[in-house]
Amino acid sequence: MSAKPLKVALLGAGVVGSEVARLLAEQAPDLAARVGAPLELVGVGVRRTGVNRGSWIDPALTTDDLQGLVTERGADIVVEVLGGIDPARHLILSAFEAGASVVTANKALLAQHGAELHQACDAAGVDLYFEASVAGAIPLLRPLRESLVGDRVQRVLGIVNGTTNYILTRMDESGASFSDALAEAQELGYAEKPDPSADVEGHDAAAKAAIIASLAFHSRVTLADVYCEGIASITAADVAAAKASGHVIKLLAVAERSFDGRGINVRVHPAMLSRQHPLAAVREAYNAVFVESDAAGQLMFYGPGAGGAPTASAVVGDIVAVARNRISGGHGPRESAYAALPVLPLDESSTRYFIALDLTDKAGVLASVAAVFAEHDVSIETLRQEGHGDDARLEIVTHEAQEKSLAKTCKSLRDLDSVRRIASTMRVVGE
Amino acid sequence: MSAKPLKVALLGAGVVGSEVARLLAEQAPDLAARVGAPLELVGVGVRRTGVNRGSWIDPALTTDDLQGLVTERGADIVVEVLGGIDPARHLILSAFEAGASVVTANKALLAQHGAELHQACDAAGVDLYFEASVAGAIPLLRPLRESLVGDRVQRVLGIVNGTTNYILTRMDESGASFSDALAEAQELGYAEKPDPSADVEGHDAAAKAAIIASLAFHSRVTLADVYCEGIASITAADVAAAKASGHVIKLLAVAERSFDGRGINVRVHPAMLSRQHPLAAVREAYNAVFVESDAAGQLMFYGPGAGGAPTASAVVGDIVAVARNRISGGHGPRESAYAALPVLPLDESSTRYFIALDLTDKAGVLASVAAVFAEHDVSIETLRQEGHGDDARLEIVTHEAQEKSLAKTCKSLRDLDSVRRIASTMRVVGE
Repeated sequence: MSAKPLKVALLGAGVVGSEVARLLAEQAPDLAARVGAPLELVGVGVRRTGVNRGSWIDPALTTDDLQGLVTERGADIVVEVLGGIDPARHLILSAFEAGASVVTANKALLAQHGAELHQACDAAGVDLYFEASVAGAIPLLRPLRESLVGDRVQRVLGIVNGTTNYILTRMDESGASFSDALAEAQELGYAEKPDPSADVEGHDAAAKAAIIASLAFHSRVTLADVYCEGIASITAADVAAAKASGHVIKLLAVAERSFDGRGINVRVHPAMLSRQHPLAAVREAYNAVFVESDAAGQLMFYGPGAGGAPTASAVVGDIVAVARNRISGGHGPRESAYAALPVLPLDESSTRYFIALDLTDKAGVLASVAAVFAEHDVSIETLRQEGHGDDARLEIVTHEAQEKSLAKTCKSLRDLDSVRRIASTMRVVGE
Repeated sequence: MSAKPLKVALLGAGVVGSEVARLLAEQAPDLAARVGAPLELVGVGVRRTGVNRGSWIDPALTTDDLQGLVTERGADIVVEVLGGIDPARHLILSAFEAGASVVTANKALLAQHGAELHQACDAAGVDLYFEASVAGAIPLLRPLRESLVGDRVQRVLGIVNGTTNYILTRMDESGASFSDALAEAQELGYAEKPDPSADVEGHDAAAKAAIIASLAFHSRVTLADVYCEGIASITAADVAAAKASGHVIKLLAVAERSFDGRGINVRVHPAMLSRQHPLAAVREAYNAVFVESDAAGQLMFYGPGAGGAPTASAVVGDIVAVARNRISGGHGPRESAYAALPVLPLDESSTRYFIALDLTDKAGVLASVAAVFAEHDVSIETLRQEGHGDDARLEIVTHEAQEKSLAKTCKSLRDLDSVRRIASTMRVVGE
């Protein structure tokens, strides 16, 4: 074993940072054996020193001079678990300039400034690892970057936000309203108080979708490219309608090649998923990512998508990988963006669609509804009518059609006299 | 991009080899961009030349001089998909001597001669990658070797043989007998004709269990260390009894730390699994591996565990990884066996247990049965009695107990006058 320790600087001592410090301390002999050299924590960057941060963080190691920690202590590896764009971004760039490799869990930063970070990393000849930025402890980015690199990924479907999956699970299993389920999630610490919007509106999932799409399709995808729709408008009636037709509603991050191969579609929205689909069984705050590729077929990765210890597991796994690279003299995979596939606008993506219409049931209504679908080239897969007279409901699932055709279809349906209202519309995903 | 191509020698042109050749040809521009240099197939080693091997294998590249292919064509990467121990073993050793890195799908070889191969690889300063040897396309070994390397794995439960999972799924879903389900699996090509024993008796799963245990616990585990029990004696009545108690029977590869931390238990056997367990939903020929670790919690990896294209996806992913290492001047993870945990004998492993007793229902019988369990320190979790008189059946699930205590309990139960026979015994796994 190499006697010389590798120096680790830790930026951030919150929920994840303190768990990283714990694992580095508790597992020190194992980590040293696995790396081939001891890992030495040389400093912990915090906003305020003098705060008790538990038994795993030595107060003598804490500093509020984050810049100095990165550049002046000879760190081989800088671990960034601060979150947010700045100061994380300039600290990481400083780390690269100082010749350190970086491990980060920062999805927002990668989804917005990934290209800049990757370029700086390559220029410095060091490593940038970020397994913990998506789906917590679930090994997903390494499989996409390395295991599936000989294959051609067609589609990735992910449940990548635990908060919304918890809320939707409660709505599905107990019939709760969105607001009751949200309150319960807040009570249990799964959703933020007072403002749960980053999760509920899908922004957290959208950042992860950008990172997944970049890796799966060897193209640069940023947060701004991702169409994003949250779950706040999902009603108990939507959930019940999904249930009645053998589906479950999940907030999905979808990244797929467009049907004509011109580009990719990357989007986050609630979707109805068949109960037979492996993702349908992913309950509560668990995450899972389902990958379809040409040779490998259908794969799924499942586990806890958040939390201090799971996220720290992914961070420390990356620390070991980066440390091994420094000892072997090599480096990990570089940014692979050669394919440069454009992200197509939502209008040009295709999906199946569920539409529930409240209508006045009189002679010819079905024919006029069917004519609207035909006019916009949207083909109907299943149709189910319930009730009679002024209380009739029609539930339609379409075959795959372009978003723009579906939008036009809905507009025309609203113009029909016999349609009192469109009670619900929802994308349908998976076979 | 580096102009100099990396030379790939392919040993084997069967189901997997021809798919590897196809991916290398079809994906050539993508693979070159991902590696940073073109991959050039310099030869395909086959038993007999002059055979038409489909459009992806150029007859001019085939040779029956496998040794010459490995040593005389300047291969950077040797891909071994021959299977079996020899000549695969000495060809891989020759490849290392010649300075080539090796990608193999050969579970039997790794499970029996892994230490020798790893040592030769390290001595040569090259790479040995073997993702395809376990669970086909499912990225499992890379997550164990790299993603979870900062964590402490407690247990791995795997459905790693598609043939037996198909048979057990049919028995569970249609009530078929073992022999009918086996015949159906043979008809569909999931089980070998005429001799399905490598799958059915658990030997295939045992080799995979050895590889998984080695990686998860940083210790050398060989096939000879793995206790192995197949599924040929599972009856329709066993399956029905499992079903009635909310379980499903799966052939599991189990690798876990012993409760006292002295070593590890590695075994393959049929087991009753709660229907709530994520592995219970893994149907037909699919594989899945469930990992429990201290920080990450519960993870599952799911996908097709066999087949030409899925296995080739894993092989080509490894080829790209190894090729990138050659270009960056580094190498992948070395064998990590520092923990050197001993594999404990089956007797010392612990499990929950299901026991069905046919008995003569008379006064005091329950007390005498309960006394037998108490005498051997086996605690009863649930007990269910059905029928009366000479036709009574008692179904018992125990709490966790040592295998040796369970064996003694069964022996004592057989000696009871009121016990007509032990109709079924089965280990119970998972919460």
